[in-house]
Amino acid sequence: MDIIVLRQDATDEDIRHIIKKLESRGLQANLSKGTEITIIGVIGDTSKVTEEEEDAIRAASGVENVVRIVKPYKLASREFRKENTEITVRGITIGGKKIPVMAGPCAVENRTVLGSIAEKVKASGATFLRGGAFKPRTSPYAFQGLGEEGLRYLAEARDKTGLPIITEVMDPRDIEVIAEYTDIIQIGARNMQNFRLLLEVGSSRKPVMLKRGLASTIKEWLMSAEYIMSRGNHNVILCERGIRTFETATRNTLDLSAVPVLKQLTHLPVVVDPSHGVGKRDLVAPMAKAAVAAGADGLIIEVHTNPEEAMSDGEQSLKPDQFERLMRELKPVAAAVGREI
Amino acid sequence: MDIIVLRQDATDEDIRHIIKKLESRGLQANLSKGTEITIIGVIGDTSKVTEEEEDAIRAASGVENVVRIVKPYKLASREFRKENTEITVRGITIGGKKIPVMAGPCAVENRTVLGSIAEKVKASGATFLRGGAFKPRTSPYAFQGLGEEGLRYLAEARDKTGLPIITEVMDPRDIEVIAEYTDIIQIGARNMQNFRLLLEVGSSRKPVMLKRGLASTIKEWLMSAEYIMSRGNHNVILCERGIRTFETATRNTLDLSAVPVLKQLTHLPVVVDPSHGVGKRDLVAPMAKAAVAAGADGLIIEVHTNPEEAMSDGEQSLKPDQFERLMRELKPVAAAVGREI
Amino acid sequence: MDIIVLRQDATDEDIRHIIKKLESRGLQANLSKGTEITIIGVIGDTSKVTEEEEDAIRAASGVENVVRIVKPYKLASREFRKENTEITVRGITIGGKKIPVMAGPCAVENRTVLGSIAEKVKASGATFLRGGAFKPRTSPYAFQGLGEEGLRYLAEARDKTGLPIITEVMDPRDIEVIAEYTDIIQIGARNMQNFRLLLEVGSSRKPVMLKRGLASTIKEWLMSAEYIMSRGNHNVILCERGIRTFETATRNTLDLSAVPVLKQLTHLPVVVDPSHGVGKRDLVAPMAKAAVAAGADGLIIEVHTNPEEAMSDGEQSLKPDQFERLMRELKPVAAAVGREI
Amino acid sequence: MDIIVLRQDATDEDIRHIIKKLESRGLQANLSKGTEITIIGVIGDTSKVTEEEEDAIRAASGVENVVRIVKPYKLASREFRKENTEITVRGITIGGKKIPVMAGPCAVENRTVLGSIAEKVKASGATFLRGGAFKPRTSPYAFQGLGEEGLRYLAEARDKTGLPIITEVMDPRDIEVIAEYTDIIQIGARNMQNFRLLLEVGSSRKPVMLKRGLASTIKEWLMSAEYIMSRGNHNVILCERGIRTFETATRNTLDLSAVPVLKQLTHLPVVVDPSHGVGKRDLVAPMAKAAVAAGADGLIIEVHTNPEEAMSDGEQSLKPDQFERLMRELKPVAAAVGREI
Repeated sequence: MDIIVLRQDATDEDIRHIIKKLESRGLQANLSKGTEITIIGVIGDTSKVTEEEEDAIRAASGVENVVRIVKPYKLASREFRKENTEITVRGITIGGKKIPVMAGPCAVENRTVLGSIAEKVKASGATFLRGGAFKPRTSPYAFQGLGEEGLRYLAEARDKTGLPIITEVMDPRDIEVIAEYTDIIQIGARNMQNFRLLLEVGSSRKPVMLKRGLASTIKEWLMSAEYIMSRGNHNVILCERGIRTFETATRNTLDLSAVPVLKQLTHLPVVVDPSHGVGKRDLVAPMAKAAVAAGADGLIIEVHTNPEEAMSDGEQSLKPDQFERLMRELKPVAAAVGREI
Repeated sequence: MDIIVLRQDATDEDIRHIIKKLESRGLQANLSKGTEITIIGVIGDTSKVTEEEEDAIRAASGVENVVRIVKPYKLASREFRKENTEITVRGITIGGKKIPVMAGPCAVENRTVLGSIAEKVKASGATFLRGGAFKPRTSPYAFQGLGEEGLRYLAEARDKTGLPIITEVMDPRDIEVIAEYTDIIQIGARNMQNFRLLLEVGSSRKPVMLKRGLASTIKEWLMSAEYIMSRGNHNVILCERGIRTFETATRNTLDLSAVPVLKQLTHLPVVVDPSHGVGKRDLVAPMAKAAVAAGADGLIIEVHTNPEEAMSDGEQSLKPDQFERLMRELKPVAAAVGREI
Repeated sequence: MDIIVLRQDATDEDIRHIIKKLESRGLQANLSKGTEITIIGVIGDTSKVTEEEEDAIRAASGVENVVRIVKPYKLASREFRKENTEITVRGITIGGKKIPVMAGPCAVENRTVLGSIAEKVKASGATFLRGGAFKPRTSPYAFQGLGEEGLRYLAEARDKTGLPIITEVMDPRDIEVIAEYTDIIQIGARNMQNFRLLLEVGSSRKPVMLKRGLASTIKEWLMSAEYIMSRGNHNVILCERGIRTFETATRNTLDLSAVPVLKQLTHLPVVVDPSHGVGKRDLVAPMAKAAVAAGADGLIIEVHTNPEEAMSDGEQSLKPDQFERLMRELKPVAAAVGREI
Repeated sequence: MDIIVLRQDATDEDIRHIIKKLESRGLQANLSKGTEITIIGVIGDTSKVTEEEEDAIRAASGVENVVRIVKPYKLASREFRKENTEITVRGITIGGKKIPVMAGPCAVENRTVLGSIAEKVKASGATFLRGGAFKPRTSPYAFQGLGEEGLRYLAEARDKTGLPIITEVMDPRDIEVIAEYTDIIQIGARNMQNFRLLLEVGSSRKPVMLKRGLASTIKEWLMSAEYIMSRGNHNVILCERGIRTFETATRNTLDLSAVPVLKQLTHLPVVVDPSHGVGKRDLVAPMAKAAVAAGADGLIIEVHTNPEEAMSDGEQSLKPDQFERLMRELKPVAAAVGREI
């Protein structure tokens, strides 16, 4: 049930009008008059009430405010599915006791570098290979990724190491070719509300990792997950990667409290990206440990054999020996919270 | 020139390495050793230095920080073009002395309602008709727009009233059909960094109105304009529509200071959208006046004949008589700052 | 009335417990059971319900959420007093048709400079002289103001020009001496929630100008006004001076929409400080005009005869000729919105 | 060294003027002319350059921008003191290998409740007792704390349990009485820039725990620590307690990345307050673990025997059995990162 709060000067005519409107949508009204404020409780399945209908009621004469109680997402909610969703890709499960680590370069640059990084992260215990073939860049003059050539290099690296791969899609027209190569499709932060793209990956059968938008609330994030799920693809992984705040000491502010909040609200697995969250190599390891301690179901970490030659995000990439050390240090942290890595 | 600040412990080897790297990119280095800090001034056209190259330098051994002085956009900058860009659409100029007002419903709902709104806003002095045929909605269960049918209704309304039209594109696959009907293509706030979409509208010859992202800095906004311009389409209009802050009394925080800031940084015209900026009908008129006083080159305002029946954003839409009154009240404000409306 | 939303698993025992708790506080409960959610409407004067009582209810077993409908401030609310509060200081009214302009240096530096600035702003039409004698500075090594000596210079400048003065208080121990000299006491942004200071100025009979905190919501701001008013001093002026956001092109983000929002919520006059809001000289004039167009009841503007020698905030101070020009340009803007300047 | 970037149109006269100004302040200038931009490197001890002097230079003719490289705090910086500061209070060390936990109610309500909570948190392994006697409350109608009576109850609880105590000061006039009772003085988030209060506690010999302001950058926070240290009190503990962002699912956004950032910038110990950071009981335990994993030197946690009867912040207080369980669960997390609890 949702609640409509009326203005003190709402007339009986106003009230009748609102009740009629609710009833025309198959809902019932429960009028409750107080000495100072009168409210209408809305009875029925209000999760079907869309934003614009809510807005229409808010805009009606006599209405002070509308308080939404029922969550505006359904398939993604913990109420819809009590047990955690586990997503298994080539034998690796995301959302289970064991915490998978996705590692690799920000962008795929060439076959040799990627192959070398893949072998190193595999040796250190990574279970997925990450790497961008299509890159969202703030400048039109920046390297935009190798495209399909990059996808082929990723597939080759998977063949050699056995690591399943995850890569980003930016354009609905690329989904088909990306889905041909990748094991998990990533939706980047800037596309979290690219609704057409969400619908398209919702029609794919590949698991989707949905990164949180820079200025997106947890509620909006779950509604974007709902977009994907509404098309039938329930294999959605959420990825916290930092939000935009006034603080400039870090690239973004990694919102680790989103992890336990999501664990209450949704059954979907939650991965944390400390690399983008902080944007500085030295801060990645402590935040990766903190993410595991907070209950994250997975990590995605940038690793590069030669960060200062990396074509993007070199500043935040770990060197292979740093990554190897981090993987070792993560084990007792995972164990301390009843998980494995 | 940009500046590289070195760490106190930077070695001569580090410095040689950085200088070599700059020279390999056609730049020159100017070393300046202080008692406490040593800096390298970078000489040459550093506007061509991309982010990833900047990052690579920042990640290099011995580097404390990189200070970017030269703006990372060029075509959009006031340095590139001193005089204001004026964009003329069917005889109406945006960026000149006269301030055009774009008015209409949030979404096109049906032929009759749109036609009626169009006539009313025309009568009150609006010079463009706005209306969404493809709507970005946070919920997958919400009305997503009429699509091409909506475009046809817009074109019909233009035929009847003579008002040129502006409508939003969300998907690169829709550009062709939208460009067939519309006079100005709008890129919404959520797509400000949908880089593929920007490149595609950059290849179109239609003027583009680029809304500011909810969490986008003015610099990022101009870099998105640069994306469009880099493809040859220099007819870009910027639209401030509010940013996301902690304040919840308004839907967003309308950043009117962006108007004079942009007037310094760029030659592109700047339009303000007070309807989305505040999200509440009663606040639209004062903020529209404030926008004009701050130097805006145009306004875009939501108007609906029956806001409480509107299928989206009813709460922030003006009724026709409110719009008519606002248009009257805007005239002296425009005159007070040497403009016309 | 406020609303308590119960969890789906709330027991009858939970409900009885909550109702008993409300009744023990003199309130009545109105239980409303829906198919999905049950709510309790709280009847009685809930404006007396404090935060901790609200928290206690939220923490009770069976409670999903508490929705506060009644505003948590009373004396400051428009409901308490319908007509605008007008505050008259030495013949100058704040909150009336005529818009007073407070002008002067950020800090009082010495008698000569202050005297010279005072005469110039008076000649241009300013109606108050501003200047800080006690300065809040982020660094302990910065100039902290002249203290009582500065107050004496302000009083001398008032004697010569007839301009009433406004100056800031930072410490409850200084109120007595400041009140001896000043006409209006200013509470700075950083002290908006220095509750002890608010109570103390609430006991003074001097009008108080309360600046908005950098990260304060409009609701919190009004609750700070309520603090002052609760001690009997109803002569409170609110001053919007920019909030902290992610944008770095301006020092703060001047939230002009706060002006019309406050006009709905409160009867208190609203002044705008464009100097601190933007932090850059060239942006002050357009934002001052925008503030007037948005409905501001007053302006406070930094002016310095020699900004580059100013001991603080030189970057945002207007030169006297710039201020003179702005005052001329503001007149038609004020007239356009039915005001005078 | 700091850097002054000149405008393209800066004249030789402008440059001479700036250099003269620097020299008059005992600094030297290093002019570096590029093809596009000219910069002046400032040589000498610029950590003594105050904000207003920086502003004055920024306001000078011909100046594009001033880039501050040298940190504006000194005593608080890691450069000033390489080894970690350890602060020992009644035998308990903050900043060492062992992580102290401060626990207790938000506000001291009465002797019995406080005594009972103190015994319980002691039994679970807490090493400090927290509790507010003077409470900052957003509403003037809320419970403001018991004042000195509350301090006496804290001292009694210390006598019984041996737990040293920490309590907040809000007003310089209360420092003397608070210092008589407490072991650590707390400065709350709202007073982080109450500069007079900072100076006063800087003159005290009691250790001070300085909470981060809701909208304060890490740099500003360290400058507030510098205020305290500049008066001779070097026993400053920093406490991260969440910043204000657009997200409303949590009370604040706990910025755990501040922990490793501070470990680089300063030698002062860093405590985390997950209770205020998230504001919801169920989220406290995961965030406490995450804080320890991120490298926090201490925790401060709200515990109440009967949260729903608590006079403030009941919603975020752990019950004693929840606290006891958390303390047990924290041990392996601390061990995993080489610490003890």
